Amino acid sequence: MEGTSPANQGNSSSRGQWLKTLPSKINAKVMEIAWKARQLGKEDPRRVYHSLKVGLALTLITIFYYFKPVYDYGENAMWAILTVVLVLEFSVGATLGKGLNRMFATLTGGALGIVTHRIATLSGKIGEPILISTFVFIMAAIATFMKFFPNLKARYEYGLTIFILTFSLVSVSGYRDDQVLEMAHERLSTIIIGCFISIFVCICIYPVWIGEDLHNSVANNIEKLGNYLEGFGDAYFKVLLDGELQSNTRRSFLQGYKSVLTSKSSEETMANLARWEPGHGRFRFRYPWKNYLKVGNLTRECAYKIEALNNYLNSKIQTPIETRSKIGELCPKISVESSKALKELASTMKKMTRERSADLHIASSKTAAEELKNLLKTSLWEEVELLQILPAASVAYLLLEIVECTQKIVAAVYELANEASFKHTNDTTLFHRGAVQPVDNNNVDASLETIITVA
Amino acid sequence: MEGTSPANQGNSSSRGQWLKTLPSKINAKVMEIAWKARQLGKEDPRRVYHSLKVGLALTLITIFYYFKPVYDYGENAMWAILTVVLVLEFSVGATLGKGLNRMFATLTGGALGIVTHRIATLSGKIGEPILISTFVFIMAAIATFMKFFPNLKARYEYGLTIFILTFSLVSVSGYRDDQVLEMAHERLSTIIIGCFISIFVCICIYPVWIGEDLHNSVANNIEKLGNYLEGFGDAYFKVLLDGELQSNTRRSFLQGYKSVLTSKSSEETMANLARWEPGHGRFRFRYPWKNYLKVGNLTRECAYKIEALNNYLNSKIQTPIETRSKIGELCPKISVESSKALKELASTMKKMTRERSADLHIASSKTAAEELKNLLKTSLWEEVELLQILPAASVAYLLLEIVECTQKIVAAVYELANEASFKHTNDTTLFHRGAVQPVDNNNVDASLETIITVA
Repeated sequence: MEGTSPANQGNSSSRGQWLKTLPSKINAKVMEIAWKARQLGKEDPRRVYHSLKVGLALTLITIFYYFKPVYDYGENAMWAILTVVLVLEFSVGATLGKGLNRMFATLTGGALGIVTHRIATLSGKIGEPILISTFVFIMAAIATFMKFFPNLKARYEYGLTIFILTFSLVSVSGYRDDQVLEMAHERLSTIIIGCFISIFVCICIYPVWIGEDLHNSVANNIEKLGNYLEGFGDAYFKVLLDGELQSNTRRSFLQGYKSVLTSKSSEETMANLARWEPGHGRFRFRYPWKNYLKVGNLTRECAYKIEALNNYLNSKIQTPIETRSKIGELCPKISVESSKALKELASTMKKMTRERSADLHIASSKTAAEELKNLLKTSLWEEVELLQILPAASVAYLLLEIVECTQKIVAAVYELANEASFKHTNDTTLFHRGAVQPVDNNNVDASLETIITVA
Repeated sequence: MEGTSPANQGNSSSRGQWLKTLPSKINAKVMEIAWKARQLGKEDPRRVYHSLKVGLALTLITIFYYFKPVYDYGENAMWAILTVVLVLEFSVGATLGKGLNRMFATLTGGALGIVTHRIATLSGKIGEPILISTFVFIMAAIATFMKFFPNLKARYEYGLTIFILTFSLVSVSGYRDDQVLEMAHERLSTIIIGCFISIFVCICIYPVWIGEDLHNSVANNIEKLGNYLEGFGDAYFKVLLDGELQSNTRRSFLQGYKSVLTSKSSEETMANLARWEPGHGRFRFRYPWKNYLKVGNLTRECAYKIEALNNYLNSKIQTPIETRSKIGELCPKISVESSKALKELASTMKKMTRERSADLHIASSKTAAEELKNLLKTSLWEEVELLQILPAASVAYLLLEIVECTQKIVAAVYELANEASFKHTNDTTLFHRGAVQPVDNNNVDASLETIITVA
């Protein structure tokens, strides 16, 4: 005991220290987790509801289990629990997709399994295992390969998995033919009960419609671009004029568009799931979900341009004051008008109405863009160095492109409003219909080209 | 019968027609599917191997089932099949992740279930169902909510699902205590057998390492940007000089970078799965996968700039010949040197060596960039209209930015090479070490600023 070295003593005393601080450490960790959980719940209360819904569905199954109907099924009753746990998802689309996939796949897989089982038993004691394992091998390989077809993967991946599962289980089972039929029937009915409880709980209690999420997400993304453009004019030209740097708070406000850049895969997943949903509210069955993907793609294209714009905001290169002041009026105007157009668009989209209130702003942004083009054509620039005016001029050029891009987004949203039959409002007729025509790149380029050729 | 109208006759004759053409239609459809399947298999033969592996694993389980060890377990044997179907995934990472999740979750869920079951049975005939359903409700709700924590969702989502499943199944089961223990033990062992067969088949036969996929995907993305830049110089400046439009084939060649724009979510998924994989080949366990995400993010940033560049390629605005010829030499040079740097980088990354062969090209692209900056500062531009030189000048400016971006990618790949201990080659020492320093935006901007201020 005397042999404990000072190092060891230090070690043990620090261990003592560590043990003493352990409760406070655990406490801090628990507090941190609780805080995070609270944040998650606050961000989206539907997460809390979903957790309670899963608990409720399982409790329903448990109660069901304790009374007659399922209890009679014995072991098979667990298939109801299994189904609820695996099928009940956050959104109605996902739950319905999985539920229908599961029921249909169990039915077909079970039927094929029974046929296989019967054929195999006819071939005697030795032939049976050989035949069954051959069949299982072939069916599993084919169904697995089918999952690689993009169309099937998007909608039926879960079904194919369950098909393999049911087929193998039924054909491999060591039962006699009549037992197999009985088992298949019991299993199918418990799975159907499980699916219906899941779908019932999912739809009837605080339902989460993924189609609505997609709708809101696309509208919010358009709004985010609007927010950026609203702030950009001030941030870039005011700062240049004042010669001071933006505050960090403003910068963070301008970061909202970043999430739009990487929204593609989540939008596609949502559109795939939304197609399973029945009509609800103002979203009917066979709603034109693919139009949302189109709007989303155009929004992302615009976001890429904003990303390019944002580089100039972060750049510290200063264009001289006299140069800046020349374009310093028109650029913020274009930016603000495009922003207003996008925000109006997002708001009418959220209301699901067919207002054309964005048209006015589009028109004024186009006018400002024309003025800017004319200004850029004047020879007032000759006394300035190219490298110096380049950043500001590039910003101007990008803003011109964003105007075109905004027009495309507006046209795509109007097309969506048409296909999805958004409701007309009184002021629709007040606005000149068809003011914004669908534009394509070539036209835009051609018009710019004409200006330059004429000049 | 005489009453059949001509319309009906036409209908029935067209139906006859339809029936006649049906076989050829079916034939055409089958041929189309077969062709698609062949394409899918050709694109990535590992898809075929995976399908056969799933078949094989299930056949192994089937054979196992027909002989002693699993047969004894009776109904529980199906858990082995269920496990194989649900756990065996395309990549080793996904299979290991699911397998370990499943085993651990079954163990903990089962243990907690047994405890709950025992507590509940102690409380008598009436208390039992109430207590059990309360416990199931609480545990299911908590575990479901835990899935919303991003960290847990990325790695343990499947485990949490299986935890709820096992906990509910074990605690709800109507067995006596000793039966529950026996059942839990049997189920756990069959699940472990299923997991091991899946993992064995997945790793031992044509394994697909998702970490390697991530490595290749990141390297390929860098190469795609290189390919674009290689073609861009020619496509933009040659076409401008020749005054002719690009052919469609060249345009499609320049589309490769588009997939880089939306690669974020797939890279993140791959990195999450790769962390489950044991060391293999030159990828050791605890490999710095997060560095790939860093390189991937920088590659995407560069891709956004290339997207902006690509707009000018598609634009039909013509900058006058004398203006273009001024920058017509330096821009393609910058583009080609950056391209070479990126392609060298991608190739050394694929070889997992620490060559610094990209440095030479980075150095010459930087020299060309400096020359271009000096050129842009001369007053040779005064006689030209701003709107006319703007596209070409913006291209030049973007290329300057891409040079900086390329440097950042190079620095990030060198950091990765360091962390992942890529092997040194003989010529490493020939190159001046540290030629490329990690750059940050501020430095770049500052240097550009200095140039302008001095000018």
